[in-house]
Amino acid sequence: MTQYKIPVIPGDGIGPEIIAEGRKVIDAAGERFGFDVEWTEFPHGADHYLATGELISEDSLKELSKYSAIYLGSIGDPRVAPGVLEKGVLLAARFYFDQYVNLRPIKLLEGVWTPIKDKTPADIDFTVVRENTEDFYIGIGGRAKKGESKDLLEVSRSLYSAKFGLDIETDSEEIGYQIGMISKEGTQRVIRYAFDLAEKSKKHVSSVDKANVLSDIYGFWREEFESVASEHPDVTTDFNYVDAMTMWFVKNPEWFDVVVTPNMFGDIITDLGAMVQGGLGLAPGGNINPEGTSMFEPIHGSAPKYKGMNKVNPIATIWAGAMMIEQLGEKEAADTIVSAIETNILEAKVRTYDMGGSAGTSDVGDDIARIVLGK
Amino acid sequence: MTQYKIPVIPGDGIGPEIIAEGRKVIDAAGERFGFDVEWTEFPHGADHYLATGELISEDSLKELSKYSAIYLGSIGDPRVAPGVLEKGVLLAARFYFDQYVNLRPIKLLEGVWTPIKDKTPADIDFTVVRENTEDFYIGIGGRAKKGESKDLLEVSRSLYSAKFGLDIETDSEEIGYQIGMISKEGTQRVIRYAFDLAEKSKKHVSSVDKANVLSDIYGFWREEFESVASEHPDVTTDFNYVDAMTMWFVKNPEWFDVVVTPNMFGDIITDLGAMVQGGLGLAPGGNINPEGTSMFEPIHGSAPKYKGMNKVNPIATIWAGAMMIEQLGEKEAADTIVSAIETNILEAKVRTYDMGGSAGTSDVGDDIARIVLGK
Ligand SMILES: CC(C)[C@H](C(=O)O)[C@@H](O)C(=O)O
Ligand SMILES: CC(C)[C@H](C(=O)O)[C@@H](O)C(=O)O
Repeated sequence: MTQYKIPVIPGDGIGPEIIAEGRKVIDAAGERFGFDVEWTEFPHGADHYLATGELISEDSLKELSKYSAIYLGSIGDPRVAPGVLEKGVLLAARFYFDQYVNLRPIKLLEGVWTPIKDKTPADIDFTVVRENTEDFYIGIGGRAKKGESKDLLEVSRSLYSAKFGLDIETDSEEIGYQIGMISKEGTQRVIRYAFDLAEKSKKHVSSVDKANVLSDIYGFWREEFESVASEHPDVTTDFNYVDAMTMWFVKNPEWFDVVVTPNMFGDIITDLGAMVQGGLGLAPGGNINPEGTSMFEPIHGSAPKYKGMNKVNPIATIWAGAMMIEQLGEKEAADTIVSAIETNILEAKVRTYDMGGSAGTSDVGDDIARIVLGK
Repeated sequence: MTQYKIPVIPGDGIGPEIIAEGRKVIDAAGERFGFDVEWTEFPHGADHYLATGELISEDSLKELSKYSAIYLGSIGDPRVAPGVLEKGVLLAARFYFDQYVNLRPIKLLEGVWTPIKDKTPADIDFTVVRENTEDFYIGIGGRAKKGESKDLLEVSRSLYSAKFGLDIETDSEEIGYQIGMISKEGTQRVIRYAFDLAEKSKKHVSSVDKANVLSDIYGFWREEFESVASEHPDVTTDFNYVDAMTMWFVKNPEWFDVVVTPNMFGDIITDLGAMVQGGLGLAPGGNINPEGTSMFEPIHGSAPKYKGMNKVNPIATIWAGAMMIEQLGEKEAADTIVSAIETNILEAKVRTYDMGGSAGTSDVGDDIARIVLGK
């Protein structure tokens, strides 16, 4: 019997409820396919932070780094200011473990309602590879008052005028600023991951940027994309400005195979993608370091108002669990979980409120576990 | 007879064709409502740039600044590298004239096909107020190699680790970076514009940001929003992360009245909004400086492959023309143009290919002008 050790961070809000269902389904898959999972819970999230003042310590991260996959519920709590937990736990883990790929399958399952007209599961079936450790997510920025921080403010003002060759007034009493950076290695590795995926798929990679306006950072991205693309002459490519991309996601999702995007634009378009595939209740994500510790999570938040109500849809979490065990090598078990999700949806008997049903979170977990076990 | 002088920049690609139709319809409205427009053409765009090396000179801008509204076709040409014309002409004008509001009505007209299920014109009817002169659009960024640009690179690396309280390696041989800035005045004035609009509408303003991750720049935005909101106790508000906002635009457009957004996120969500309202062929925009020179344009690009084919939809441009004459004080004429557009669509006889018809650009212009004249 294969043994896996998987650390779990249930997190905040509905996190513990949905993670319980994910574990239930993976345990059922283990029973059927002959593996056993030893789950270890980690307490990080709002309660732990409010009780101890600790977000996630380097010690916890070192401990977690012994594993190859972490199962995460959701992070975020109204008692804590926006961003504190998200940055201090979720982003800290993505960065610390150098999970440079955020993998988001955008797949309309058979029987799921999408808000988009005239599209079938054959039309909505692609993968977004979001860069996950750089760009505007590096947390560098600040505020400045006139006269202070002379360097950045003054340099900015003169560059601003110089770039446009015009005399533009930009004096301001007070500003807020933010810096994004992408590196050559950081950009190449994620683009390479996307091309490798496309080699196993429909051999097409779409790049997302805004090189016509944020030219310094995304002109750099384009060059690295072109350099990696030249190593894959059999893969076709296209470039899309992020604004236009939101239109194509809605109008022509069938155009895409693998979409690779810088971090911040990836955050935006994958939420839109989640809606196109039927809503957040159905959208899983993986934070992947192919050589290190990966982390799998539903892409929705902690939905504090539903906490403890046994109401929300656990499918995104269960699907993220399938991605996790696939990463661990259990491909057959993973496929079985995804097809059990599809069966549950097609049978249309045990569904949560967001899919028009009245079943509870745990009912859906039970039902999918039952199908996995072939009962 | 009221006289207006309006400068026109037809621009590139299909620009001249669509502008011709816009002028035709405004001239018809003038005939009916008793005003006369003297049009002055400006040559800026690809041909002018390739012939003279000039994008838009300070002399041209000074000349244009004598007018209160400019009518713009579209800018962009495959012979010129991406970004050069867009930044050198379009963004230069927005910045020079300090057109701090980019106004985008998201309105599904009666009879228009939207890709979104189950939504009617009553559901899709709101306005996006996009900040238009700051944020990541200021054009400041660069590249750095290890060892070079010590200041920014080194500061960034240490801040990066310090902010997360962790020991994260960020060494890279080469990076591309970009800086965004928003100012107190720049943020307040556009938010104030949004609240003033909401006062005349359904008294609700939705703010867009990503304050949980880009906390420095958008935490600042939120504070300014809250400060302006406190001056309008009768207007209700909500905050939306930009990623979630893309979902609500598709799923619940009926939630919105006035949406106010920083520049870059505004660029993204207004293209999505254009799709929700039926496509780029139907989406007008105004770049507004309420005390200075404004500029009106369709939000689509120059569509070089359709150039000279008398094929594309002129409705976005005609609608932008209506916004322009409303800004000049001709409200009744503006309303008449918009309702003529609606009549043309409802009659469903003279339509361009994107709306399932086979009429030419000029046929649609002719038809709308005819309806404006009451013929
Ligand atoms: C919670 C938040 C920090 C996070 C992000 O912005 O990456 C989320 O939106 C996501 O997409 O996983
Ligand atoms: C052409 C481009 C520079 C422009 C922008 O990014 O603002 C366009 O997308 C728009 O929305 O008007």
